[in-house]
Amino acid sequence: MDTNKVSRILKSMEEKGIPQMIISDPVAIFYLTGKWIAPGERLLALYLNVNGNHKLVINELFPQEKDLGVELVWYNDIQDGVEILSQFVEKDKPMGIDKTWPARFLIRLQELGGGSKFINGSPIVDYVRMIKDEGEKELMRISSKINDKVMEELIPWVGKGMTEKELEAKVRELYAAHGCEGLSFDPITAFAKNAADPHHVTDDSKGKYGDCVVLDIGGFKDNYASDMTRTVFLGEVSERQKEIYNIVLEANLRGIAAAKPGNRMCDVDLACRNYIEEKGYGQYFTHRTGHSVGLEDHEFGDVSSVNEDIIQVGQCFSVEPGIYIAEEGIGVRIEDLVIITEDGCEVLNDFTKDIIVVPFEG
Amino acid sequence: MDTNKVSRILKSMEEKGIPQMIISDPVAIFYLTGKWIAPGERLLALYLNVNGNHKLVINELFPQEKDLGVELVWYNDIQDGVEILSQFVEKDKPMGIDKTWPARFLIRLQELGGGSKFINGSPIVDYVRMIKDEGEKELMRISSKINDKVMEELIPWVGKGMTEKELEAKVRELYAAHGCEGLSFDPITAFAKNAADPHHVTDDSKGKYGDCVVLDIGGFKDNYASDMTRTVFLGEVSERQKEIYNIVLEANLRGIAAAKPGNRMCDVDLACRNYIEEKGYGQYFTHRTGHSVGLEDHEFGDVSSVNEDIIQVGQCFSVEPGIYIAEEGIGVRIEDLVIITEDGCEVLNDFTKDIIVVPFEG
Repeated sequence: MDTNKVSRILKSMEEKGIPQMIISDPVAIFYLTGKWIAPGERLLALYLNVNGNHKLVINELFPQEKDLGVELVWYNDIQDGVEILSQFVEKDKPMGIDKTWPARFLIRLQELGGGSKFINGSPIVDYVRMIKDEGEKELMRISSKINDKVMEELIPWVGKGMTEKELEAKVRELYAAHGCEGLSFDPITAFAKNAADPHHVTDDSKGKYGDCVVLDIGGFKDNYASDMTRTVFLGEVSERQKEIYNIVLEANLRGIAAAKPGNRMCDVDLACRNYIEEKGYGQYFTHRTGHSVGLEDHEFGDVSSVNEDIIQVGQCFSVEPGIYIAEEGIGVRIEDLVIITEDGCEVLNDFTKDIIVVPFEG
Repeated sequence: MDTNKVSRILKSMEEKGIPQMIISDPVAIFYLTGKWIAPGERLLALYLNVNGNHKLVINELFPQEKDLGVELVWYNDIQDGVEILSQFVEKDKPMGIDKTWPARFLIRLQELGGGSKFINGSPIVDYVRMIKDEGEKELMRISSKINDKVMEELIPWVGKGMTEKELEAKVRELYAAHGCEGLSFDPITAFAKNAADPHHVTDDSKGKYGDCVVLDIGGFKDNYASDMTRTVFLGEVSERQKEIYNIVLEANLRGIAAAKPGNRMCDVDLACRNYIEEKGYGQYFTHRTGHSVGLEDHEFGDVSSVNEDIIQVGQCFSVEPGIYIAEEGIGVRIEDLVIITEDGCEVLNDFTKDIIVVPFEG
């Protein structure tokens, strides 16, 4: 295990009065051990105890060649893994539980009395993961540099009469060509009214002359995610579209300006939201301004109006205001990733935010 | 909601003394409502009550155009969805919980006292889903017919010097060409010693003359999964490989013969396992014999030595014995899907189980 990361977690456990906890999220386990183990529906539980009695409960189907720096406790498919886990927990003390642990395991552990009470322990891990170390920052930069290139290569395809699904396949191809392991989320390649639905599911729609096109894309490079959105226009951009675009752009810039140590996460959200409201479009900005990013595209730490956490050096999150007017078929979102520095932030995306009109050949 | 499926669930809830339950798995919600809703990390909870007071708690980000046949209760990103849910549950009665519900929601509901006790309620849904209705059976057949074709088209590529990852990309391409939505699991296209590791992660290995190749593949067609494994040989097959292959094949056939109503699930496992043990390879058959399949590749209902559930008409599961001898670089698995009929089972895969030697051009 990464000694530095583990000791930050143990310190936080002591501070919070959680002497033991179960980490089950494969991403968190990778973060601590450097090893991806994808157990599917099977139990995988890293048990940490402030007394140093750490263990990893793991199914025999996942033999480990390397030393993970933690004692492995094996079980097989005909054994009750949670019962085995319960044998070495401290039943008379509080137990932190991974926020993602499926209820079937938690309910079983509760039946076995595997703790004096059960607390969501994930904030401990999440707050540690939220602050990227130097190695992680460099990986985030590299991943986003690739994203800039993929966006550049993708945009010319948008006007060529492809369906949203065909564009999605193109996105996949471009990340693979840049050596990425895969996409960091299902990309959005949405035209017109679909662009105006921030959670539209990619379908067989094609773009028409004059459409806006929301491109929200990201990949994994060496396990770290990128995530950027640009909105472009097919053939021409109307005055109305320009008006909306420029409001969203200014909101994006105001959000980035507010992303600095000492501000709260909600200050970033409000910098975007207040401006959009001031311009009369508050009701059309229907989601939070962003989310933390790292080993996952969505990590703990929302950029929302209710997150009063103070921003710290080393955080990495998205700033992605949008305006979605379904009745006009207009949707615009502009998103960048930032890493918080001593005196502000470093924007990881260099791709232009000027208005782009793509020649329409469809 | 599908009235027939919901009423089967409510009946089971009454029988088991669980008057209310929360279903959160998007697959189970699709099963009941016919609508895919992918809430990501956000709360999505279908609350069923035997008194008919059903509700779906859903984030405002997922607007619904169609009537889902259940009252929708909306919340947004700055509200506590579980607190809203807790307002209409019966706090003095037991509460069934979806086995997949993340601990962060369950712990919150427990803090709010949202039930007199908390029980894993998923077996109720799982046992209903385990029995496919006629429409589902037909979709399973169609999906597996495509899998036969994909296997046929894939095998000639195996000898052409592609890496495992390139073969995986080919698998993806073939399912897309057959109109599948995607893969039903990460396919295994593993050579030699990798074939001898049943949970090998696809890498850049290439096949060599004389290698065995495990091809474990499946796709989703109209939401229903296929899943089949064949093991083929590059250039030639040794007597030793043939010996192992024929033992696995006989085990597969014995498992299929045991797949009939009235037998227990473990009888299918034991039919395979006892034969392999008898031949002296018990220690090399390191996993359960199979799993149920349907809207997911892995559904509730293991074909394992400890599952004593009686097999019922309408079940669909895999029969996939294997022998994995790491030190010899030999791995063989043969897998078919079956649907249980009145007097036995229907094998969904028609692709040959004769030994195939693929010309080696690598």
